[in-house]
Amino acid sequence: MTLPIPSGYRFAAVPARVRDWERDDLALVVSDGPAAAAGVFTQNRVVAAPVQISKSRVPAAGVRAIVVNAGNANACTGDPGRRDALAMTGEVARCIHCEPDAALVASTGVIGRTMPMERILPGIATAVGRLAAGPAAFEAVTRAIMTTDTRPKVAHRMTGDATVLGFAKGAAMIGPNLATMLGFVLTDACVSPADLQQILARAADRSFNCVSVEGHTSTNDTVFLLANGTGTLLGGGELDAFALAVEEVCRELAEQIADDAEGAAHRIAIHVEGLASESEARQIAKCIAESALVKAAVYGGDPNWGRIVSAAGYAGVPFLEEELTLWVGPHLLYERGLPTMPDPAPAAGYLRDNRQVDFRLAFARGDARCTFFTSDLTPEYVRLNADYTT
Amino acid sequence: MTLPIPSGYRFAAVPARVRDWERDDLALVVSDGPAAAAGVFTQNRVVAAPVQISKSRVPAAGVRAIVVNAGNANACTGDPGRRDALAMTGEVARCIHCEPDAALVASTGVIGRTMPMERILPGIATAVGRLAAGPAAFEAVTRAIMTTDTRPKVAHRMTGDATVLGFAKGAAMIGPNLATMLGFVLTDACVSPADLQQILARAADRSFNCVSVEGHTSTNDTVFLLANGTGTLLGGGELDAFALAVEEVCRELAEQIADDAEGAAHRIAIHVEGLASESEARQIAKCIAESALVKAAVYGGDPNWGRIVSAAGYAGVPFLEEELTLWVGPHLLYERGLPTMPDPAPAAGYLRDNRQVDFRLAFARGDARCTFFTSDLTPEYVRLNADYTT
Repeated sequence: MTLPIPSGYRFAAVPARVRDWERDDLALVVSDGPAAAAGVFTQNRVVAAPVQISKSRVPAAGVRAIVVNAGNANACTGDPGRRDALAMTGEVARCIHCEPDAALVASTGVIGRTMPMERILPGIATAVGRLAAGPAAFEAVTRAIMTTDTRPKVAHRMTGDATVLGFAKGAAMIGPNLATMLGFVLTDACVSPADLQQILARAADRSFNCVSVEGHTSTNDTVFLLANGTGTLLGGGELDAFALAVEEVCRELAEQIADDAEGAAHRIAIHVEGLASESEARQIAKCIAESALVKAAVYGGDPNWGRIVSAAGYAGVPFLEEELTLWVGPHLLYERGLPTMPDPAPAAGYLRDNRQVDFRLAFARGDARCTFFTSDLTPEYVRLNADYTT
Repeated sequence: MTLPIPSGYRFAAVPARVRDWERDDLALVVSDGPAAAAGVFTQNRVVAAPVQISKSRVPAAGVRAIVVNAGNANACTGDPGRRDALAMTGEVARCIHCEPDAALVASTGVIGRTMPMERILPGIATAVGRLAAGPAAFEAVTRAIMTTDTRPKVAHRMTGDATVLGFAKGAAMIGPNLATMLGFVLTDACVSPADLQQILARAADRSFNCVSVEGHTSTNDTVFLLANGTGTLLGGGELDAFALAVEEVCRELAEQIADDAEGAAHRIAIHVEGLASESEARQIAKCIAESALVKAAVYGGDPNWGRIVSAAGYAGVPFLEEELTLWVGPHLLYERGLPTMPDPAPAAGYLRDNRQVDFRLAFARGDARCTFFTSDLTPEYVRLNADYTT
């Protein structure tokens, strides 16, 4: 299947030897015309230099490019790091002839190391010379941003006449890169920066913010949304349809990230419903998703409802036990505050036989819901993360 | 060394076959006279029946007894569970001739199972017949409350003429008992229930609330403090000295709990200082203590400062990178926002050569501090927790 590439974007990936490896590790996305741009960023207090720079430049109306490198996070690098991130966007601007603040930057990789600018700056110039519009150039970019990902993550939707195309990296719930997640959504729709920012924030809340492997927020997490369409701004029902398309793309990327978690034997989808607000539902789902006891039980094929119910109980959301019902896959294990005490063998078999498993928790406090993704905790995960990496 | 037992308490432990095992699993502590009593309990929304009952009975002035069982948590058991917990305290009251609400109850073990009252009630009667005041009876009680603990946990202090003697269970960061922590502090000092409650809450905050293995709050966590002294109520400097003794006892018990974490290869003490408030310091320390990435790195002997610093960064406490300095043991790894980039070998050697390791994080926002205890994340931990248990 040929990917639909939105109009007016060109792509390039080059090997800049950001680390001591042979692979494309520098990627460039350029919009031929000025694009409205939105961004959401890590909530960590320790914020990488590229996040500091990019955060100050969105939302905006005239963005022309995003430069991304893998291999070095440019985090915990102080003033020199900020100068390097600025120099990267400055070099992009110089080569494509735009204002410096029309370029955005994202980095992922080892933290605490100086960027090899003597190779990155020439790499940017080379990339600009190789920009191309087709699927091959796009695909090369989706690979160049990978770190410990085993595969690129891509999703798309059509909405009206516009294409929404997203790609992401993240899997790397291990290693010194601290699980950095980068996401990029490109569209040729015409949307105002303010609408774009609101749409992205909501979509990220319902997708990337619903994936957790160990709850360790990175210093570099970044998602950009660019819209370079010209003509009449989307509004009304068309804007709603566009927002839904963006949300679906983000959601699909988030699922692919959860699915590619290293060292995992299961992907777990946690569906929480019947709360007063979406944020309450997310809080409960997140607490379950981040419980080492729940995750180890899934690895062991143990349908341990007690761990799930009690993880919900310490999420900080008020509820009564009598309001909670729990299914593991199709198996009802806990109903309105009491274990149903069936033979545990079928639910155990369900966990052992499926790589993708579902928990469903139903409360009776409202209509809000959330689906959250995580992976199980395996001895392999610990071994991968215990490797001496610095 | 003979343990100093505070005056006016008697102890008994009996095998009641709460589970299918041969061991003492029912413990009774009786105060000969009425004791002031305080309690702190799990913050989980899913609260075991014995917690519901005991919570309604403290702080109080006339408490006479605590009954404790191991093997069954009496959690997620609904109305029948509440009736069983009430029946346990009722039987104690009947046998020692006190009001039913002068007895407290704590349970730990598997959740979601009905209590075997046909064995527990006769067990209580037997225990009452065996009550004794000496260290041997006390020691039997400290063992009867154990679950996956490898050893009993006991600590004591003298303050003025009074003895403060504490014992606890918890280690069991694994298994269906969900890491339940039970703690009991007995004294022959004379203290008002209100003072006692305040002293216990503060001591628990600085001890049991500073231990986390995987952040999974149990449905049954309970700490009781009983003071059965007669005469003049403690006040002023004497009360402060008493409060300090209680805090030190709780702290020592908490350290013993962290030290007995199953599947752990390291005990990690996280010292956070220089924050505006103790709760901010605890929030940061807790976030680091619960990071699977930090804990796996310690297991692997990897002095991964990036994981520690970024875990501090997502604790929700405002700070600037430039305010943070980090030592791993004696090794300065990060200073005012920048890695010091020494040879990692000495810090790696420190982690490999020591079973008890220290992190120190210094901020520059105030004088408040906190020490928090946790253990590392090992493949053995995952294997123990993945065991099919229900």
